[in-house]
Amino acid sequence: MPSAAFNPLVADLSAPPVPSVFAWARAYDGARGKMIDLSQAVPGYPPHPDLLVWLAEAAADRANAGYGPIEGEAPLREAYAADVASVYGAPVKAENIHITAGCNQAFMAVACAIAGNGDAIAMTDPYYFNQETTLSMLGIRRDLIPLDPATGFVPTIEGIEAALAKGVTAVALVSPNNPTGAIYPADLLRHTFEACRKAGAFLILDETYRDFLPGDARPHDLLSIPGWEENLILLYSFSKSFCIPGHRLGAITAGTRAVSEIAKVMDNLQICAPRAPQAAVAKAIPALKAWRDANRIEILHRAETLKGVMEQLPAWKMDSLGAYFAFIRQPFPGQKSAHVAERLAKKAGVLCIPGAYFGEDQQDYLRFAFANADSQTIEGLVERLSTFTLD
Amino acid sequence: MPSAAFNPLVADLSAPPVPSVFAWARAYDGARGKMIDLSQAVPGYPPHPDLLVWLAEAAADRANAGYGPIEGEAPLREAYAADVASVYGAPVKAENIHITAGCNQAFMAVACAIAGNGDAIAMTDPYYFNQETTLSMLGIRRDLIPLDPATGFVPTIEGIEAALAKGVTAVALVSPNNPTGAIYPADLLRHTFEACRKAGAFLILDETYRDFLPGDARPHDLLSIPGWEENLILLYSFSKSFCIPGHRLGAITAGTRAVSEIAKVMDNLQICAPRAPQAAVAKAIPALKAWRDANRIEILHRAETLKGVMEQLPAWKMDSLGAYFAFIRQPFPGQKSAHVAERLAKKAGVLCIPGAYFGEDQQDYLRFAFANADSQTIEGLVERLSTFTLD
Repeated sequence: MPSAAFNPLVADLSAPPVPSVFAWARAYDGARGKMIDLSQAVPGYPPHPDLLVWLAEAAADRANAGYGPIEGEAPLREAYAADVASVYGAPVKAENIHITAGCNQAFMAVACAIAGNGDAIAMTDPYYFNQETTLSMLGIRRDLIPLDPATGFVPTIEGIEAALAKGVTAVALVSPNNPTGAIYPADLLRHTFEACRKAGAFLILDETYRDFLPGDARPHDLLSIPGWEENLILLYSFSKSFCIPGHRLGAITAGTRAVSEIAKVMDNLQICAPRAPQAAVAKAIPALKAWRDANRIEILHRAETLKGVMEQLPAWKMDSLGAYFAFIRQPFPGQKSAHVAERLAKKAGVLCIPGAYFGEDQQDYLRFAFANADSQTIEGLVERLSTFTLD
Repeated sequence: MPSAAFNPLVADLSAPPVPSVFAWARAYDGARGKMIDLSQAVPGYPPHPDLLVWLAEAAADRANAGYGPIEGEAPLREAYAADVASVYGAPVKAENIHITAGCNQAFMAVACAIAGNGDAIAMTDPYYFNQETTLSMLGIRRDLIPLDPATGFVPTIEGIEAALAKGVTAVALVSPNNPTGAIYPADLLRHTFEACRKAGAFLILDETYRDFLPGDARPHDLLSIPGWEENLILLYSFSKSFCIPGHRLGAITAGTRAVSEIAKVMDNLQICAPRAPQAAVAKAIPALKAWRDANRIEILHRAETLKGVMEQLPAWKMDSLGAYFAFIRQPFPGQKSAHVAERLAKKAGVLCIPGAYFGEDQQDYLRFAFANADSQTIEGLVERLSTFTLD
């Protein structure tokens, strides 16, 4: 009797990476003190108390128990469109917004809407792992744009043009970057958009960490380019900015045609994003602006602390530091990053993600999600890392 | 300059059907009284007030704001496993449960986990439209098993075996059925399972409307078959039973290997289902048993009312009536079902879904989701349908 088989594209995927890292944490005996958790990208501070109140009010409301519009609740689409319009000084409207259940889902919905089996999407190496596994399981080929630590893991326009020349459907970038933290210059993004437009491809730009950028300059001017709707799709997550990943909310900014195509995918994928959190976040976007700004300052402060800490750890080279993440070269050449990360968790009580989870060529690296930990906790790295040995 | 293109598998899909039906409703002038809405499959009564309280409490809890386990919250997996074990008298455990954001997502996650581009899954004709569009957009071929009104739209084992002989990866059935309401006999399901096992295929059984079955007999004994885990995947939705579609919760019951593969898909698809509703529904499953039973009785009562109503409308033939839905043959042969449904909505104030949305060959039919409306409202159909003309 033949066994029922699984899709080899899924069966061949590794188990999801974050739970495997948590398993190392559970094996830590606490000998070095409380675990310094720099693994998952979640803010180390709680949501604003008002947001918890609004979440509860919305959840208690019978109106939110019914089905909602596929594209998202009108008040949230309007509030987020206004937020994007304000950040970019561009006339983005509610009709340009599609609400999703988080940014992984936003990426998957966009990937389905623009590419099918055998198509290719370009992404950087290192990449954000769920974007890579999403393409793999859908049978969409990835075309990797190798990044150079010497240029701070920022892609070159030549690298992007080379990928476009191979006929990719889209170039998918993440800025500020996960895993490296690198912030891509506005000029590079402009040139990338123009190259995508020339090639008839989409630029998919994941801006999950946008709210944690240093400085007040606009991240880019792409939304001010006439006709941006034809070639640009922006992704965002409310999880990090509002500290509510468990409520699952993200957003897509795109042209109205793209929003219509994505809605067809989303109808199959989950009909609509959960409604109560949409009602709450629609209130939070304007109301909690000062709170979000204060968090941005706090996370910039944590970045400064980490910078000072790493200067005291010359064996551990910080090849990139940006919004939310640092990409650290581990001091054990030839050792696999998962082995180093596992030992770090179990022996030193420092939890981080192995570089190889973001690309096979990243064995020398570890991702530190420093935004998870306050400055005092980050300072504890000096002692734990300076005394760390693999055996 | 070439335009950036969309995935033709998505571009070729029609717009999602439910919003197009709602557009007809908005064009109704109210001349015949309040709209009789038999369109979307949502219960016409509110969630239990205790559940709204639990939803609010869970939403206010900071603990539920963080990321949760991909497979679902342990208390909900345990509570739902106990519920399934009790319904089927079979030893189903929490490890057999994967929580999803609704049953559309459950189907999509399962489809991705077991089939890739070029594989085929068998489904009935008529089918539940989102299952069909999910396969289409993923490039999974559908192999249709035609159903006969003469046998109440229940498939034959010969029809299922014929599909299996073509090498399908899975047979996907919905019982109680959407759109026809048909309840598949336990024997047929047993034979279908055995045929799938022999062929090395999965039986995917969507039981979204299971809680509305008449009688107390077990719907089937599939979970008592030794080794069921290798070939059986059950789907469920909390949306209908607990009246909370806006909170997006469903569940998959499967073998542990299947749960692992599905978890890889779900990690990409949305990391985890929304957490606060999971905490609330874990409480509700044991606590609201009597309430759910009372709703079942109420919906059976509505079915009886509809039966009486249709006996007074000899031109409108009820070819199938079951849990939640009836499949009605409209009295205008040669007219397209969407045209009839549009005129019904705009002229008669009766909202239902055209048969053709469930398969091109279903032009003669309309789906009435009678569970949406109370008996008094259903009785209003006699006057509205008996006087209805197309022009």
